[in-house]
Amino acid sequence: MAVCLLRRVVGVFPGRVRTRLYSQSNQEPLTLTQQNNGIRRIILNNPQKRNALSLSMLESLRENILSDIDSDDLRVIIISAKGPVFSSGHDLKELTSAQGREHHNRVFHTCAEVMTLIQDVPVPVIAMVNGVATAAGCQLVSSCDVAVVTEKSTFATPGVNVGLFCSTPAVAIGRAVPRKVAMEMLLTGSPISAHDALLHGLVSKVVPEQRLEEETLAIAQRVCQSSRPVVALGKATFHRQMAQGRDAAYATASRVMVDNLALRDGQEGIRAFFEKRKPVWSHKAEKAHE
Amino acid sequence: MAVCLLRRVVGVFPGRVRTRLYSQSNQEPLTLTQQNNGIRRIILNNPQKRNALSLSMLESLRENILSDIDSDDLRVIIISAKGPVFSSGHDLKELTSAQGREHHNRVFHTCAEVMTLIQDVPVPVIAMVNGVATAAGCQLVSSCDVAVVTEKSTFATPGVNVGLFCSTPAVAIGRAVPRKVAMEMLLTGSPISAHDALLHGLVSKVVPEQRLEEETLAIAQRVCQSSRPVVALGKATFHRQMAQGRDAAYATASRVMVDNLALRDGQEGIRAFFEKRKPVWSHKAEKAHE
Amino acid sequence: MAVCLLRRVVGVFPGRVRTRLYSQSNQEPLTLTQQNNGIRRIILNNPQKRNALSLSMLESLRENILSDIDSDDLRVIIISAKGPVFSSGHDLKELTSAQGREHHNRVFHTCAEVMTLIQDVPVPVIAMVNGVATAAGCQLVSSCDVAVVTEKSTFATPGVNVGLFCSTPAVAIGRAVPRKVAMEMLLTGSPISAHDALLHGLVSKVVPEQRLEEETLAIAQRVCQSSRPVVALGKATFHRQMAQGRDAAYATASRVMVDNLALRDGQEGIRAFFEKRKPVWSHKAEKAHE
Repeated sequence: MAVCLLRRVVGVFPGRVRTRLYSQSNQEPLTLTQQNNGIRRIILNNPQKRNALSLSMLESLRENILSDIDSDDLRVIIISAKGPVFSSGHDLKELTSAQGREHHNRVFHTCAEVMTLIQDVPVPVIAMVNGVATAAGCQLVSSCDVAVVTEKSTFATPGVNVGLFCSTPAVAIGRAVPRKVAMEMLLTGSPISAHDALLHGLVSKVVPEQRLEEETLAIAQRVCQSSRPVVALGKATFHRQMAQGRDAAYATASRVMVDNLALRDGQEGIRAFFEKRKPVWSHKAEKAHE
Repeated sequence: MAVCLLRRVVGVFPGRVRTRLYSQSNQEPLTLTQQNNGIRRIILNNPQKRNALSLSMLESLRENILSDIDSDDLRVIIISAKGPVFSSGHDLKELTSAQGREHHNRVFHTCAEVMTLIQDVPVPVIAMVNGVATAAGCQLVSSCDVAVVTEKSTFATPGVNVGLFCSTPAVAIGRAVPRKVAMEMLLTGSPISAHDALLHGLVSKVVPEQRLEEETLAIAQRVCQSSRPVVALGKATFHRQMAQGRDAAYATASRVMVDNLALRDGQEGIRAFFEKRKPVWSHKAEKAHE
Repeated sequence: MAVCLLRRVVGVFPGRVRTRLYSQSNQEPLTLTQQNNGIRRIILNNPQKRNALSLSMLESLRENILSDIDSDDLRVIIISAKGPVFSSGHDLKELTSAQGREHHNRVFHTCAEVMTLIQDVPVPVIAMVNGVATAAGCQLVSSCDVAVVTEKSTFATPGVNVGLFCSTPAVAIGRAVPRKVAMEMLLTGSPISAHDALLHGLVSKVVPEQRLEEETLAIAQRVCQSSRPVVALGKATFHRQMAQGRDAAYATASRVMVDNLALRDGQEGIRAFFEKRKPVWSHKAEKAHE
């Protein structure tokens, strides 16, 4: 189901995206990507502009995420950034009155699309953060499934200082941390430390800078050891049932458990467990035939 | 209302449950129960099988919980376990393709029934944990009203390792801890410590092993000092209003406060307060007549 | 919209409110208020009665909050208390059977009105707590946008001890902290420390007693440096979108961001940013005309 949705979304922007992949100043691509052993790395690559989530940057991100999203070769995505700022959020130059309401609409629409995409794609998305993440940059970290961050990283929603309350970041942050924590961040714009971000559930793990890659890759590799369709089903179900009341959520999740067991990889996992061997995943969303 | 519901549920399984109370291997009962001074203790008693939540175990638990649930003599339930594993979750032997889809359905249906029952019964249910709680075992801890655990206890949802994503445990865990914490547990299957479980709200209290009984009983005895219908009304209302929007929740809870005051024990409590004496509860859900 | 709502609420109680502003015993006003530089201070002033939230106290609070709520001169509200008890919750004398069901109804209705008002007014409300906050007093702290508290402050919902389960406080507390934390507080009535309250999101900041004023005022002054209509829009949007599903929340918040940018102060903030100067806010909810 997620798959169909994504195909459709990509279909809306054929060709156009790639033309926006380069920043104007230096022709450096706005994002870098590489993929090895199932792990796709997406690196925000505009440190001079504090990795601002300009419309072009958002479109690059969207393309980088959706490209071959249904390939068995892709198992997990890591989003990181070059430079001391993970991302400073929207590019304020795109939000002046000169740009006009229609353009503003498009920026926020695209931003929400990327943020929800991260939760809706069939593979886990990990934020790997070493530095400052503010406004929509903080929203990006919030939206990822897992976030591994260094001790020096900080998180803030300072829009109120420039007269633009961080209402869209608040959608993600308000669903990640307790309300009072979100509210104080939003009202004061003051940054919180990596430690406090961990305490309140905004991030998953805080590590020393020299261990950031290693710890993030360990989680990514762990995901790679699992069956792709099992993870995809689990991730989609998590978000679906969390939006439901408890009893409806149990009905949904119980049905999914039975469907999961009917998958080829569902039966292989259990068989391997009893045979005390490593499972050999097909990574295909196929039913077992027995 | 909870009372009616429970009666109905019990009615569905007359007699049959008891026949499943014994494990096949050794004729030891799957669960042990005792009740003293209002405190019912239910002990998972299949340590050889890591207290797996087999269908029989779930049915035993259901019977143990529901038996005389409306008796004034019952005021609080404590669920604990024999052996180093609190519970390892479902019995994978029941989830092979040989068992078939209908059986799988029945397992997950019964499991969801037990988990929601714990929240729907009129007395508080406390998990007393000294060891490992994984998958549906972790869901069981999550579902209890209070969980007192030892420092060495750990919590995990490792289903993804055997190709069965912990989607039903995620219903309970996702409603207990921040989403990123739940997601990392679900995607990696890695255990979290008792300390982290406390930090994130999965458990209520972490104590040294030698104080587990004492601290758990202290909470149970505290509950016993309260009026049964007042606690029942409060517990039911908590879950009801939490499923509503804020304004509807206040309408519900405000009405309940007035009803609570109209109870015999509601008026007795306030009278005792002014008379500087201990209240003498009737424990009957009766209106005061004045 | 909030404005209309508030006007209407005030209109319902014309005149009557003021006659209740004084406690009967000593003719001291139940609350004290002062307003300077945009900061309104409301001080619960009935320490002999542990600042009980009697109907009169609730009506005073309501009036103090709503008075000139739409004035540009008001930017933030701080609620604090005289004496060692921030507030002990409802006045039990008003909840006896002698007072009758109608009176009980009115007490809880007014209480819910004040608690939701705090979230619905267009300015942030900060609780400044130095002492004990129990039952509806704890609900009051929970309901504020920010809470700065001293290390010695404690928080409890002990209603169960007097046969009156804290079901209305649970509406606010259950939405502020993890469920297990709320449930243990409600079932046992035991107080939690300021540190644990911070850990679980019930309060925003714990400070030494001698720094309480300073730290609270720092947050208030920070709010005063922001544009009033921007803060009002952001606060209202936060609560609105949090009650929606994720996709609806993004639709709401994205629309609001565009509206925010169209405000005079929205454009001024961004212009000032590029001109590397302090913004000069109009504090008027007016559209920029360009």
